[in-house]
Amino acid sequence: MRNLFDIHDWKIVETSFDPKKQMQAESIFSIGNGSFGQRANFEERYSGESLQGSYVGGVYYPDKTRVGWWKNGYPEYFAKVLNACNWIGIDIEIQGESVDLNHATVLSFYRELDMQSSTLSRKVTLRLKSGKELEINSIRFCSMHRNEIAAISYSVKPLNFSGNVKFTPYLDNNVSNDDANYDEFFWEEESQKAGNKKAFVCSKTKKTNFHVATAMRISFWKEKELQEIHPNFATKSLYAENSFETYLEIGTTYTLKKYVAVASTLNHSEFSLVTHAINQVKSAYLTGFDDLLEEHKVAWSNIWENADIQIDGDVAAQQGIRFNIFHLYQTYTGTNEKLNIGPKGFTGEKYGGATYWDTEAYCLPFYLKTADPKIARQLLIYRYNQLDKAIENAEKLGFVNGAALYPMVTMNGEECHNEWEITFEEIHRNGAIAFAIYNYVRHTGDHEYLKDYGRPVLNAIARFWFQRFNWSKAKQAYVMLGVTGPNEYENNVNNNWYTNYIAKWCLSYALEVEESWAKKDKALLSNQELFQWKEMLDKIYFPKLEGTNIFLQQDGFLDKELLNASDIPDAQRPINQHWSWDRILRSVFIKQADVLQGIYLFEDHFDLDVIRDNFDFYEPKTVHESSLSPCVHAIIAAKIGNLDKAYEMYLRTARLDLDDYNHEADEGLHITSMAGTWMSMVEGLAGVRVYEDHVLIDPKIPATWKSYSFKIRFRNNPIQVTVNQEGYVLENFGNDSITYTYKGKKIELCANQTSNSLQLIV
Amino acid sequence: MRNLFDIHDWKIVETSFDPKKQMQAESIFSIGNGSFGQRANFEERYSGESLQGSYVGGVYYPDKTRVGWWKNGYPEYFAKVLNACNWIGIDIEIQGESVDLNHATVLSFYRELDMQSSTLSRKVTLRLKSGKELEINSIRFCSMHRNEIAAISYSVKPLNFSGNVKFTPYLDNNVSNDDANYDEFFWEEESQKAGNKKAFVCSKTKKTNFHVATAMRISFWKEKELQEIHPNFATKSLYAENSFETYLEIGTTYTLKKYVAVASTLNHSEFSLVTHAINQVKSAYLTGFDDLLEEHKVAWSNIWENADIQIDGDVAAQQGIRFNIFHLYQTYTGTNEKLNIGPKGFTGEKYGGATYWDTEAYCLPFYLKTADPKIARQLLIYRYNQLDKAIENAEKLGFVNGAALYPMVTMNGEECHNEWEITFEEIHRNGAIAFAIYNYVRHTGDHEYLKDYGRPVLNAIARFWFQRFNWSKAKQAYVMLGVTGPNEYENNVNNNWYTNYIAKWCLSYALEVEESWAKKDKALLSNQELFQWKEMLDKIYFPKLEGTNIFLQQDGFLDKELLNASDIPDAQRPINQHWSWDRILRSVFIKQADVLQGIYLFEDHFDLDVIRDNFDFYEPKTVHESSLSPCVHAIIAAKIGNLDKAYEMYLRTARLDLDDYNHEADEGLHITSMAGTWMSMVEGLAGVRVYEDHVLIDPKIPATWKSYSFKIRFRNNPIQVTVNQEGYVLENFGNDSITYTYKGKKIELCANQTSNSLQLIV
Repeated sequence: MRNLFDIHDWKIVETSFDPKKQMQAESIFSIGNGSFGQRANFEERYSGESLQGSYVGGVYYPDKTRVGWWKNGYPEYFAKVLNACNWIGIDIEIQGESVDLNHATVLSFYRELDMQSSTLSRKVTLRLKSGKELEINSIRFCSMHRNEIAAISYSVKPLNFSGNVKFTPYLDNNVSNDDANYDEFFWEEESQKAGNKKAFVCSKTKKTNFHVATAMRISFWKEKELQEIHPNFATKSLYAENSFETYLEIGTTYTLKKYVAVASTLNHSEFSLVTHAINQVKSAYLTGFDDLLEEHKVAWSNIWENADIQIDGDVAAQQGIRFNIFHLYQTYTGTNEKLNIGPKGFTGEKYGGATYWDTEAYCLPFYLKTADPKIARQLLIYRYNQLDKAIENAEKLGFVNGAALYPMVTMNGEECHNEWEITFEEIHRNGAIAFAIYNYVRHTGDHEYLKDYGRPVLNAIARFWFQRFNWSKAKQAYVMLGVTGPNEYENNVNNNWYTNYIAKWCLSYALEVEESWAKKDKALLSNQELFQWKEMLDKIYFPKLEGTNIFLQQDGFLDKELLNASDIPDAQRPINQHWSWDRILRSVFIKQADVLQGIYLFEDHFDLDVIRDNFDFYEPKTVHESSLSPCVHAIIAAKIGNLDKAYEMYLRTARLDLDDYNHEADEGLHITSMAGTWMSMVEGLAGVRVYEDHVLIDPKIPATWKSYSFKIRFRNNPIQVTVNQEGYVLENFGNDSITYTYKGKKIELCANQTSNSLQLIV
Repeated sequence: MRNLFDIHDWKIVETSFDPKKQMQAESIFSIGNGSFGQRANFEERYSGESLQGSYVGGVYYPDKTRVGWWKNGYPEYFAKVLNACNWIGIDIEIQGESVDLNHATVLSFYRELDMQSSTLSRKVTLRLKSGKELEINSIRFCSMHRNEIAAISYSVKPLNFSGNVKFTPYLDNNVSNDDANYDEFFWEEESQKAGNKKAFVCSKTKKTNFHVATAMRISFWKEKELQEIHPNFATKSLYAENSFETYLEIGTTYTLKKYVAVASTLNHSEFSLVTHAINQVKSAYLTGFDDLLEEHKVAWSNIWENADIQIDGDVAAQQGIRFNIFHLYQTYTGTNEKLNIGPKGFTGEKYGGATYWDTEAYCLPFYLKTADPKIARQLLIYRYNQLDKAIENAEKLGFVNGAALYPMVTMNGEECHNEWEITFEEIHRNGAIAFAIYNYVRHTGDHEYLKDYGRPVLNAIARFWFQRFNWSKAKQAYVMLGVTGPNEYENNVNNNWYTNYIAKWCLSYALEVEESWAKKDKALLSNQELFQWKEMLDKIYFPKLEGTNIFLQQDGFLDKELLNASDIPDAQRPINQHWSWDRILRSVFIKQADVLQGIYLFEDHFDLDVIRDNFDFYEPKTVHESSLSPCVHAIIAAKIGNLDKAYEMYLRTARLDLDDYNHEADEGLHITSMAGTWMSMVEGLAGVRVYEDHVLIDPKIPATWKSYSFKIRFRNNPIQVTVNQEGYVLENFGNDSITYTYKGKKIELCANQTSNSLQLIV
């Protein structure tokens, strides 16, 4: 695989302009701050192929569902992430000639995303049709310190002429979603105004009535000297601009600084919104670009302090893992309980919605180990707040008594997805949400959370599972019919092992939590419910390959032709692009870990032999056509000592978007699967596990690396793990003494202590 | 159930005007002649709720597929039956006031569909806002004798005034489909002209480029006296009219006769089309209304001669059965091998396409027994002509070597449907097409057909089945995974008993036919194929309930909660309107006969005990939410001696549309299921079976009926069966002596012979 951009440990760098790469680059060089984000579109007009994209967290539009054949229970709408006001725009015109990289001769081009500071910069020299040459230098960022602020410094230097240049910084909310089912326009005008070196546009979404106010302030500089300018200002519907023409001297740099605030009624009242945005941008303007940038860098350095992984000896791997960590924190910072982690973050629109089971299954472990526990807690609170909607959702499907089914895709808690085999049947997602609560508690020890917020969610999920099983007279067991497991290359199967397993675990964990808290707090379940659940637990059916350790993915799995993925001709891979859907369904091939997903989550329930046998049975049948698959395989492969396979699986995900393996980075990045890459490193290569009372490590290192190092949180203590070819070192930066185990040996690590010297890897 | 319209043995009669019933009436009073057809819209403008619908057989538009989530293998388009040129239009205006039943006071109203003569007539008296009263008398028909001709006689009588009245007979192809996925307009202008008492509109369909020419001629009469008129003529895009104003005397009847030809490039070259239509309409005009009507009646009387069922003692049942027979012959007459039987015929647009497996499974037996064998043969030729497309269709799904999968829905042989669990998985339709060939041969003895046309189709279908089974190591048998059986309330199941059974039968029948013809004609299959198929036959897996006679609908069926339909609360019926799709799928409830469909087709393969046990097991679990279900149950119930159940099931279908049980007659009628009603009578109550060398009868009669009588064809000999409470009489109107059996007794019935006297029913 050829690298798409230059390799660098902290940066993504593009050193020549290729319009064919522009859409990919726009996604890959995206910046965001967890509250809003922006594709790496150019500030000046660009008439080439581009997806102009500005996205504001939590603001959505209920796009009318597109469906071929309606099924009862389908939702009426699909919540779409909204492409919002373009706030980066700065048009440049020189004596009637627009600066547009699509029509100019690009003499040199350099674009850089600095992941350490989250700044996007660009240096271009170009020649216009008129022969005029100029240099553009721009740098921008979405402030991680002030989550409603962005700033741009945009410099122009005439290289071979002196003359008048017109600058038009603007705000433009005349923006359509690329992803809209019926090409509807989602925005309505609310108000806009332009004044002297300032402007705002306030628009609202149709139907959902979210108001978004975008405000700007500008200043203009000749080299380091502030210039007095007298811009014209103009507005039209959903648009506001300043424009001014000024004489530029050859060889001199002129800089437009544009300060922007983006605020919405997700966090503010309609009444105060515009004022708030104006005040925010004024404060940013008064702070000034350099100081804003400085505080932004400090905020990012705090993130990296905890979340960075350093790899020595492999710059491509180093760049890859940082790219993933970087985009996760651009997308979600845990500061707002109304937000979640959209599949494309702020880098594109596809798939709509903000919340999939990816959040709990992949992203939560990342935040649990790399940040203050309150960030992970927000993700749990998000689901807690949507419990009522999950109960309504289950009621629509005929469930009663407060049973909850969390949606497959959502923005506000309501189901958005409409594909019966997924919407109604891929119900294992409910299990991931329960497991997230368990996982949070074992990382943080926050049992109070469990009492007040965890229990209602666990109980409602357990009620769902209790009703979803039915008694099979034939099997004399409880069975679960008509489900789709994590492996979406099987639909509407009976007794998916993973779903049955996690359902049983949910019932059992809910019982355990309830019984433990019912004594100390008020009981939330009736005795009858407790009794019925317990009665069910022992009688749940699990398909097995008799006489072996193999758990069968579902009933009838062995009736398939038992081929391996290596039997598929290369020309037919990926099968989802070459085979008809029924052929995929009939085949034995697995899209993503299914039984192995269960073994990953409940590793401690199984002997190593069982884990190895199931891995050896399923891994060869898995085509990994979901970006969420390889990480689970990497972790289990490492666990069973297959380092080569673990490393192979790690490599499959680490640079997925950066090198655009799947030729779809133009639409946006695979944000949630980035957490999977991180998992393959920390849980896979380094073998980290977190238990109620200790951390386990079992580090391995690829032969080509010198060393790697990262921090994890355990009970809010940052523990640094460093691994090289000989051994590992643990350092406890926390205030509590902690216990870790290595190869069965328990080791105490006091507060602020290093595990002395290098511990040899045995 | 309240009757929607008056009960009459040969007529559907509406005696008062109810705008709320207009849409239903438009469907129910539809007329057609197998080539084109027309909903019972009013000739004069009507501004009330209405679906104006004129449909031309075989002319379709490839409407862009609407899909929620694209799956590989889905077709790009869905062929839509086209709403075509409105040829009935006659506007009436009296001194600026339009005649429109929606704005007038209707003083009396009488609408009649005479099924014997296939004429739609109407007599209305009305008062306009101006106080003027008039009487309208209209009668129209689509000629069964000249299949491109229709005629209207439209009379106006002023009741309380004399004065000028303006008549505007027109042709209008500015018509949109009610059923269009993206509200596209499907027609393009080709040419139009209006002349003295004549006009035509020729339009063409976008993309498919079908040309349809509609031509008219008019004459005007005062009482019985032809009037000289001098109409103005005008055209605009897709529209042509004549208009003339004339003085009408109080109490005198004035009649506009409108002759229409409808021709298309399905049957004519683009070059000659308009001329052909003009010539046709001229010839009709010269023949005159009365003679056209007369020849039309004769053609219908020939149909009724063979197809009628007379029921004495139950007028509602009599009307119901005739209504079904009537609409089947309006839809399909077998004169054109390019046509087939659309689910709504010419009565509406819903579902698009023309051809479903309904044709072979339900309609073919009807035509085989009620008409010359060449009519049924056309239906087989239709599929023979589309074999190449069926092979392409199978190739898209990964099948090779000339395997064919006929489409779920089609117009031209290409698949139109896009719902993976149906399109790719409801493959039993392939079996119905093979069975139709077998059924045709046993009714007609046309083995020559088998040699030249049947064999290639049978072999291609058998090749599909051979590849669609796979060897299960676990079961040591061939299994078929991922199918949807006739019961569409189960999706993507393994080893659907019906599908496995009909697939095995196809292989076996194809082998038998091939081996018999290979000696006399050239061999079409390799020895290897013959060998492999034979090897497979003995090793096909069938799910069974061990220790009983019950064939299991599919693997895992017994894991369901084994409830009966009677356990469902009334308020939750039909379940397809009350339950979410997954709940329906998980439930045991059966939409339409599945195992019983197989038992129906292959009745002779099973002992009566087996049939009874399976009926008793499945019938209580069946909710009959397909109009194609009760007929199969009626036939089997009769077979096992459960006359009450047979009659109950017969009643469920007989007046389905006539009384609009399902509140959907406004969209059009259930044409194909009408054949099912006929089957419940002839194969159910009368117990008729046709074998290679004899006919079996086993007549029963409901207690409330005096007698019933019908004809069936056997080897092209019309055999009349008359049944009353004591016994039955058979009459052979054919030229060959035939054998029939009754209760195991073989009886010879010579040419032109009656079974003498009444045979007692034992």
